[in-house]
Amino acid sequence: MNEKTKLPDGFLCSGIVAGLKQEPKKDLGLIYTTKNAVLGGVFTRNKFPSAHVQYCRTLTPTNEFRALVVNSGNANAATGQTGVEANQRMASQLAELLKVSSHQVFTSSTGIIGRPFPLRKIEDSLEMLVSRLVDHTETVAEAIMTTDTKPKTASVEIGIDQEKYTVTGFAKGSGMIHPNMGTMLAYVLTDAPLPYSGIQELTRDIADLSFNCVSVDGDTSTNDSFYLISSNPVDELQPSLSDKIREAIRDVSISLARQIAGDGEGAKHLIEVVVRQAPSKETARRVQNAVVTSNLVKTAVHGRDPNWGRIMMAAGNGLLSDDAVDNHPISISIQGVSVFSEGEPQSFDEEELSRLMAQFDVRIEVDLHNGNESTIGWGCDFSDEYIRINADYST
Amino acid sequence: MNEKTKLPDGFLCSGIVAGLKQEPKKDLGLIYTTKNAVLGGVFTRNKFPSAHVQYCRTLTPTNEFRALVVNSGNANAATGQTGVEANQRMASQLAELLKVSSHQVFTSSTGIIGRPFPLRKIEDSLEMLVSRLVDHTETVAEAIMTTDTKPKTASVEIGIDQEKYTVTGFAKGSGMIHPNMGTMLAYVLTDAPLPYSGIQELTRDIADLSFNCVSVDGDTSTNDSFYLISSNPVDELQPSLSDKIREAIRDVSISLARQIAGDGEGAKHLIEVVVRQAPSKETARRVQNAVVTSNLVKTAVHGRDPNWGRIMMAAGNGLLSDDAVDNHPISISIQGVSVFSEGEPQSFDEEELSRLMAQFDVRIEVDLHNGNESTIGWGCDFSDEYIRINADYST
Repeated sequence: MNEKTKLPDGFLCSGIVAGLKQEPKKDLGLIYTTKNAVLGGVFTRNKFPSAHVQYCRTLTPTNEFRALVVNSGNANAATGQTGVEANQRMASQLAELLKVSSHQVFTSSTGIIGRPFPLRKIEDSLEMLVSRLVDHTETVAEAIMTTDTKPKTASVEIGIDQEKYTVTGFAKGSGMIHPNMGTMLAYVLTDAPLPYSGIQELTRDIADLSFNCVSVDGDTSTNDSFYLISSNPVDELQPSLSDKIREAIRDVSISLARQIAGDGEGAKHLIEVVVRQAPSKETARRVQNAVVTSNLVKTAVHGRDPNWGRIMMAAGNGLLSDDAVDNHPISISIQGVSVFSEGEPQSFDEEELSRLMAQFDVRIEVDLHNGNESTIGWGCDFSDEYIRINADYST
Repeated sequence: MNEKTKLPDGFLCSGIVAGLKQEPKKDLGLIYTTKNAVLGGVFTRNKFPSAHVQYCRTLTPTNEFRALVVNSGNANAATGQTGVEANQRMASQLAELLKVSSHQVFTSSTGIIGRPFPLRKIEDSLEMLVSRLVDHTETVAEAIMTTDTKPKTASVEIGIDQEKYTVTGFAKGSGMIHPNMGTMLAYVLTDAPLPYSGIQELTRDIADLSFNCVSVDGDTSTNDSFYLISSNPVDELQPSLSDKIREAIRDVSISLARQIAGDGEGAKHLIEVVVRQAPSKETARRVQNAVVTSNLVKTAVHGRDPNWGRIMMAAGNGLLSDDAVDNHPISISIQGVSVFSEGEPQSFDEEELSRLMAQFDVRIEVDLHNGNESTIGWGCDFSDEYIRINADYST
């Protein structure tokens, strides 16, 4: 993925070093639209959301979006009333500078929780941030990184009736990624036409197919947010057009989601879990989530150990007492190799399968043989490095 | 705790090497009563229970208990119909040897999932197992260990009206420990009088106060079982007597639960989480469980890092959308030091608190200031060793 991914028409972005991180790395970013844009947003379901989530929820959705300022290094979460006020001030300062109304300015933060928000450093950097706007994602995608090992960008072009549109997204992930938006910031920008009516439902649907299917460590952060923004607001859209645009937005979002999962803290593998023939969508999702978040499955993948018993055990944890599938025979495959079929262990070459598990992508399939619903989700393996990163993060 | 903990009157136990483990360690155990005993039992809620759980559920509760054979090294889970038959055969062979009926014989297994059950080795060892019965827990407590670093035993004496009774328990824990009975086997034996009527409710109540409050890695195993057995069945019991006995059983069970939590795979700390002033018991339990199972909290404790932001974040994950405590100010303390009070960060000496966190027991208290319910639970920290143990368990 080229880091200088082109932005759709009507968008400019920037990213600079404001001195919020211990090392001199980019930590302040800006998304700017040259005219009013339409925006939908999905936020963490954590009951103690950060200041920017509290603030931006009240502004979402909108068709008057103009700017979003995002910082890394400090989450502005658990910072009490002081943090809430600092966030508002950051937004209104930027609005003044851009000569827009402050309800047109959004905010995002990521980083350590519970530390005083470095408002002064940000205020001192806003002018420079605005002066560095460019037409590609390179600097902004870097500015949002925390423990990410690389920036995450995806872009798709769509041609409809001689018109060309672009969908470009960038995101940050790493630790604490989990359904319902772990420490994840994702922005998908497009110049394809989108109506204000329905933008919020579309954003939620896309999140459910992509970012909400990612699970790195089972925790859900206080901060995380996904925005879909179009610089081309329209009153309504033909269904045929709408389908093509939706598909492109979905593809960009799934690419970002997979990049986030594969770059989980300390990850050596992307784990893809598919659940088939479940009695309901919800059951499929619970089983998928139980398998992909199981520490025992994650360590087995890390050790390239085809220990399918742990997959079965995790699947059994994902089922609820009212699922009525007690001891229903299931099937499991790893990297396409059938290891357990309709309730009976299969003989397979363990060494050969272990070699197949050396690939970066490890695919686990669970078939419940008990319905027609299916789902897919992503996570990563669990390595010693995760412990090292997380035992020493704040001190 | 003395490993030669005396058994209550009417009980004998044994533990021998049957060759089920790779190393020559004890792996086959027996609990035997000289006459019919009363038994209650609680089992895993995993939807794919092992052969012995399927079998013993149908026998529980009973007032005709005579023996329980337990093996470590092989879980007899995900072994299909062959495993179910092997389990039944193990029980009936022992019944024959002891000259009791096979419905009086219970079974337990723990170890690796999905490997053929080594029935032949067990059959060949039953006679020796019976010949080694003794009046203390030493050999049986060893025979049930898997990755446990030490046997877990607890015993309490009660004096009631010149009568003396004993409650003695032993257990195994380590990986996969979680509410609803992770890979946990626990047996609490007593010669105190207990009636058949109510034994099952008592067993469940005790589990809810002890073993179901333990959470090591968020996974729940296919196998796990807690039994309460009295060699002194009676028709009914005075409430005053019942209270004293219940208290002793609870104390033994809580001691075993804490030993299990503190000996989680690779654990360097026991984490005790108290939640207070919750709107409901269920909310208190969800918050407690979210904090104690959070990988980010577990790694912070491992690093002696008073990163209370993660505790807040985890507590926020434990609350559901209908809990109506969005951004309700909470308080958090670590080792008795207030770090966050009614929604505002507190200033405290981080180095001093980090030193306090070097103790084996680390206590986290969360006050929701939003009700009258409270709860307590136990887990352990998360170390690199956990990854090593679990990446290489089967291969």
